[in-house]
Amino acid sequence: MNDRPDSATAATPPARGERHEVRRTRNRARYDQATVRSILDAGMLAHVGFASGGQPFVIPMLYARDGESLLLHGSVASRLCGELACGIAVCVSVTHVDGLVLARSHFDHSMNYRSVVLFGHARLLEDVAEKTAALARFVDAMIPGRALESRPPDPGELGATHVLRFVIEDASAKIRSGGPKEAASDLALAHWAGVVPIERRYGTPQAADTLVQGVELPPSVRALLAARDAS
Amino acid sequence: MNDRPDSATAATPPARGERHEVRRTRNRARYDQATVRSILDAGMLAHVGFASGGQPFVIPMLYARDGESLLLHGSVASRLCGELACGIAVCVSVTHVDGLVLARSHFDHSMNYRSVVLFGHARLLEDVAEKTAALARFVDAMIPGRALESRPPDPGELGATHVLRFVIEDASAKIRSGGPKEAASDLALAHWAGVVPIERRYGTPQAADTLVQGVELPPSVRALLAARDAS
Repeated sequence: MNDRPDSATAATPPARGERHEVRRTRNRARYDQATVRSILDAGMLAHVGFASGGQPFVIPMLYARDGESLLLHGSVASRLCGELACGIAVCVSVTHVDGLVLARSHFDHSMNYRSVVLFGHARLLEDVAEKTAALARFVDAMIPGRALESRPPDPGELGATHVLRFVIEDASAKIRSGGPKEAASDLALAHWAGVVPIERRYGTPQAADTLVQGVELPPSVRALLAARDAS
Repeated sequence: MNDRPDSATAATPPARGERHEVRRTRNRARYDQATVRSILDAGMLAHVGFASGGQPFVIPMLYARDGESLLLHGSVASRLCGELACGIAVCVSVTHVDGLVLARSHFDHSMNYRSVVLFGHARLLEDVAEKTAALARFVDAMIPGRALESRPPDPGELGATHVLRFVIEDASAKIRSGGPKEAASDLALAHWAGVVPIERRYGTPQAADTLVQGVELPPSVRALLAARDAS
């Protein structure tokens, strides 16, 4: 993700703190809310970072955007909000890889990607109604409409679930797209250059072998596959 | 990534420090070197975490595995090794999402994934030969064989490139695979349950419009597409 400057993407100045200011390849930096939201809404996996006694931890967690917050839910909720006090500083990063950028020089090889880096604080949700709503948001963030096709949590499940609300205080986005940016002198080299796109693709659904007889693929999954086949 | 225990994956005890010990869903944890390597070698994008004055940062960076190290190379090399002293504690996480796991309850929805979390320290490469070799490794990690199909770096490019060697001191891997793990009482619900696989797929290569006449798609890219079409 290191390459020559380009002028394809414009940057606007950061509106808030400085910690999210992009230091390198500023031409790829974006701070507008719509860009940050669109990158977040295209994913479901975040890498969540926090520090304990100077030791950094980076943990993969599922997320769902809820306005200017992310709801987080994952296997290390216990570490994030048990061992460590809640209210600690958290950095969350979400990245989509869109393609390999192949250049005539080693140096100009790059990736096309969209990423956001977010700074803020997380707190544990305690309210039963808020936790119940958060679980439905997770399921719908995974596949829109899925929450209505499955059973809401019971009190035992709610007690066993840790959900965090991470309030986004500062955000920045970076996007790289398009072909290689190369030195003019390299264009005479008889090497191939270009982009190999990478896409995330849904495969054929595999039904559990315990389904009640007659249960068919639900609308949420059918819509996902229809969108895939239309693209 | 929070769901009921399963016994499909066995854990062996950690051989080294405790910071990488998986606290939850221990049944998914693996510490063997072969598993960690296979997950690293299946990817090229890492989320790299470090802390400065208690503030965590998580940055997406390209990587290439080199034995028990990761070579790192990215847009924030300057922040990671300029603003901060080298030799700081670093945590690196790499995650592959393999599928959506849909259950009859909100609570049992999950993801299939493979992830590693690595702890260690990073140092800046200074030696010209080592940096040159690292750039070739990056290119070959992106597509095997590509380094020989493009031009090695010149002294100016080497001077403009920051490459870090991150030595892996502790590592853990987690893998979830298979269908939903559900309470027996939920199996009578007339909801669909199962897995929607997610795969990373290469698209049709887009050649730069500046290619020297007669240059064709190189062996590295043809091999990538052949592997795609055979899967």
